Amino acid sequence: MRFLGYFRSSSAYRCRIAFNLKGLEYDFESVHLKSGQQKAPAYAAVNPQMLVPTLIADDGQELTQSLAIIEWLDETYADPPLLPADKDLRAQVRAFSQVIACEIHPLQNLRVLQYLRGELRLDEDAVSKWLARWLGEGLTACEDILNKRGEDSRFCFGDVPGLADICLVPQVFSAQRFGVDISGLKRINEINANCAALPAFSQAEPAKQPDFEA
Amino acid sequence: MRFLGYFRSSSAYRCRIAFNLKGLEYDFESVHLKSGQQKAPAYAAVNPQMLVPTLIADDGQELTQSLAIIEWLDETYADPPLLPADKDLRAQVRAFSQVIACEIHPLQNLRVLQYLRGELRLDEDAVSKWLARWLGEGLTACEDILNKRGEDSRFCFGDVPGLADICLVPQVFSAQRFGVDISGLKRINEINANCAALPAFSQAEPAKQPDFEA
Repeated sequence: MRFLGYFRSSSAYRCRIAFNLKGLEYDFESVHLKSGQQKAPAYAAVNPQMLVPTLIADDGQELTQSLAIIEWLDETYADPPLLPADKDLRAQVRAFSQVIACEIHPLQNLRVLQYLRGELRLDEDAVSKWLARWLGEGLTACEDILNKRGEDSRFCFGDVPGLADICLVPQVFSAQRFGVDISGLKRINEINANCAALPAFSQAEPAKQPDFEA
Repeated sequence: MRFLGYFRSSSAYRCRIAFNLKGLEYDFESVHLKSGQQKAPAYAAVNPQMLVPTLIADDGQELTQSLAIIEWLDETYADPPLLPADKDLRAQVRAFSQVIACEIHPLQNLRVLQYLRGELRLDEDAVSKWLARWLGEGLTACEDILNKRGEDSRFCFGDVPGLADICLVPQVFSAQRFGVDISGLKRINEINANCAALPAFSQAEPAKQPDFEA
C-alpha cells in the first residue's frame, strides 16, 4: 500500500493509527500541504479534492477520505476490528467519530485557517477565538456524549481502542497545538492518556513522522 | 420511530430521503433551529451536540449524525440497500458522501453563518463569497470525482440511488438557495434532475415538510 499524507494532517494521523492498530505496513509519501503540493496536477488527478490523505491499495485502487479509508481497512483486514460487531453500538461509534470529522475538524482545516487569515484578514486573536469556539464546543459535546454513556471504560467505547479513539486523539492533539483549553474535559483527557500509552497511537504522532518539521 | 429534525437542515433532508427510499414511516418532531430550540435542555439531553437530526428508534435508542443514522437504517432495514455490497465500491460511495458531509456542509451550517455575521460582522457580500468558495470548490471536486469515474449512470454510483445521491441532492439545494452558481457542473445537475424525478427525493424537499416556513 502507498499512503500519501502529511505529518500534521489530522486525517492522515487517523489513518496512521488505524494502520498501526492493524499492524499494516505501508510506503509513505509526503504531500507538503504548506507549500501546496496537494494542488500539483499529478496529485489532483489522484485526489480531485486536493486534500490528504490518499491510500493507493496493492491492486492500484485509490481511496480518499479518512473515515472511508479506515472502514475499508476494517473490511479488508478484519483483525483486530476497529468497529463494534453490534450494529447499534457501531452507529454510536460512527456518530461520535462524525462529530469530530464532520463538525470540528472541518472548521480548523489548513485551507479554512488560510481563508480566515488571508481573505478575511483576521488577526491571531480572532483566529484563536474561532478555534476556541469550534474545538471547545465540539470537544465538550464529545465529553458530554461519553459522560451520557456513563461507561468507565479505558477507551471511548469499551476497553479496546477503535474508530472513536482514532478520531479523538488527533483532535485533542490539534486542540493542544492551537492552545485551546480542554483541561476540564476529564474523560477525554483520561482516554487520550490511555491511548498515548499504546505504541499504535504514540508511533502515529506527527513529531514521529519522516516529514515532520518543527 | 421518532425523527427530530428541521425542514431546512441538510442533514435532516438526507435522512428524509433515506426513510422514503426504504419506505419507512416515522413520527416527525420539528426542532426550530432559527429560534434555538436545539439548545433547550430537553433536546440537549438527547443530543449533546445540540444539532439536528436525532432519530429515536422503536426500542428507545437515540441515534445522531445523519451518515451514522443512514448506515444504521441500511443495516436495520436492508431493502433496498443504500450502500453497495462490494467493499471497494462502498468505500468510494462513503468517500464521496464524506466530501459533502465533512468538507462542504460544515462550512455552511447555520451556526457557522451566524458566527460569520455575528462575531465576525461580515456583510452579506463577504458571506456570499465564503459560501461560493466552499460550496463551489467542494461541488466542483464532486463533479471531478464523478467525471473521473467516467460512468454514464443515472445516479452517482450506478443506476439506483444511494448514499452518495442522498448527500448530493440536499447540498445542491443549499447551493441554489445561497445563490452559488453551479450551472457548469453538468454531471451533478443531471444526477440532481434524475433524483428530483423520484418521489423519494421530491417528497423530502424542505418546502414539502410540515414545519416549512417561506
